[in-house]
Amino acid sequence: MKKIGFIGLGLMGKPMAKNLFKKGFQLIVYNRTPSKTEDFKKIGVPVASSPEELSKEVDVVITIVTDHEAVREVLMGPNGAFNGARPGTVFIDMSTILPRVSIELSEKAKEKGFHFLDAPVSGSTWAAEQGTLAIMVGGEKKIYEENLEVFKALGEKIIYMGPNGNGSYAKLINNIIGATFAAILGEGICFAEKVGLDVSALIEVLSSGAFKSPLIEFKGPKMMKADYSTQFSLNLMFKDLNYMVETAKEKNFPLFLGALTKEIYQAIKNKVNGDLDYAIIVEFFRSLIQ
Amino acid sequence: MKKIGFIGLGLMGKPMAKNLFKKGFQLIVYNRTPSKTEDFKKIGVPVASSPEELSKEVDVVITIVTDHEAVREVLMGPNGAFNGARPGTVFIDMSTILPRVSIELSEKAKEKGFHFLDAPVSGSTWAAEQGTLAIMVGGEKKIYEENLEVFKALGEKIIYMGPNGNGSYAKLINNIIGATFAAILGEGICFAEKVGLDVSALIEVLSSGAFKSPLIEFKGPKMMKADYSTQFSLNLMFKDLNYMVETAKEKNFPLFLGALTKEIYQAIKNKVNGDLDYAIIVEFFRSLIQ
Repeated sequence: MKKIGFIGLGLMGKPMAKNLFKKGFQLIVYNRTPSKTEDFKKIGVPVASSPEELSKEVDVVITIVTDHEAVREVLMGPNGAFNGARPGTVFIDMSTILPRVSIELSEKAKEKGFHFLDAPVSGSTWAAEQGTLAIMVGGEKKIYEENLEVFKALGEKIIYMGPNGNGSYAKLINNIIGATFAAILGEGICFAEKVGLDVSALIEVLSSGAFKSPLIEFKGPKMMKADYSTQFSLNLMFKDLNYMVETAKEKNFPLFLGALTKEIYQAIKNKVNGDLDYAIIVEFFRSLIQ
Repeated sequence: MKKIGFIGLGLMGKPMAKNLFKKGFQLIVYNRTPSKTEDFKKIGVPVASSPEELSKEVDVVITIVTDHEAVREVLMGPNGAFNGARPGTVFIDMSTILPRVSIELSEKAKEKGFHFLDAPVSGSTWAAEQGTLAIMVGGEKKIYEENLEVFKALGEKIIYMGPNGNGSYAKLINNIIGATFAAILGEGICFAEKVGLDVSALIEVLSSGAFKSPLIEFKGPKMMKADYSTQFSLNLMFKDLNYMVETAKEKNFPLFLGALTKEIYQAIKNKVNGDLDYAIIVEFFRSLIQ
């Protein structure tokens, strides 16, 4: 079995690393905030003192951290994993970052004799725990195939997207669609409240037709009850929307709905705690009619 | 069994009327274009020469026609059904129209001693054939309950929404969410094309997460292949978007995404055949980058 170094034990990373351990991979972990490594120490997983140390004797380094600044830091910063890894090491970045940065990192990796896959995930922390994430992978197909066993330990649906950057492109498109769908759901629910509809009956209607989906099923009731306990935070969604807007600009692509969606998320982010669930987008619309 | 007069044998109405016949209701039909009644003549269903004639001896009059002008015409026009019906007749309008007009019609019906339910449907012609439509009903609850057997012959999910107008409100909210979801899907697919992603792999990604839905499953491939064979036409979706925008204005409700979506549908409607499927919205985005 491959030996894996895992960097980033956040809401998603922690259950993912645990799944690799359960499936029998040799594991070593690193996290910037050391307290998050305690669970792993208890079960005998070694904890590295830096990404550089972690990378020294592994076949694969997985990163799943907040944004591209964090990925750059853990890979290319002082004590970064690129300093310690042996030639041939496979870097799998599962963070959601700018496709441009995924491509840049893949080029730097290649210069040093490493391999690089951008492989962001979609799915909740629950899916991370169950090992049922969707994973969209960009990079050399041969390397993707050689590491399929790693992906299969983490996800249910593994989709090869093409060369480096394509995993990140797919993830940003996925999230701008999700963010816009959630926003129009919020707009619709708020209009229903305005005209005095029974919102739970409306959610039943919405769940009976062409867009019956987990998003309607889970975010609809959260919006109705103003329950913003976090499944995926407003801050993270906003970050991804900004990445999408920036990427569209780089490609001279005129965003319409996506751009307006980003502005709506900006507006509500100025008013609420961004660590809450992005279902809180409904409050943007409520704030307009109160 | 109730005796039912059925007005409007279009793409949805025809299979719905046939289901009522199969379930054993006594049926009489009317359609403005007489050729559409041929199928019914063949199976021995009487064809009325006017809505007025149709309404004379039935318990229930169902209307499902294109827009509120058409509903007004068949109910309140010269030779309209309101002229022929007996007191106590139940009018069920299953068209998608302005909630304001649903309320107005219910009031006129009441003045004449009739009952009125606004009961628009969601689902494809296939769902109409299978009798698996979703039906959202506004009106007096007692009348709704007394006619549940009629609804159950037509749909799988029958949802009571409250007083008159609420069925129509729910339908417009449903469609503005669907129209916006389809538009952001088109925007996303077009961006994927621009950056060289494999769109079928992208659709697989989109079908693996929070918005896995019939809309992604059916409209995604139609957009990818530019197959605009009609399931629900651009013209009808555009009509509903206009109804929603008009209704929001009446209620002083500030639409954001819904309003932009309407403009996007307007733009593509100026360029293509509006009888085609609304999946053609993707061509709006393609036209911007070609």
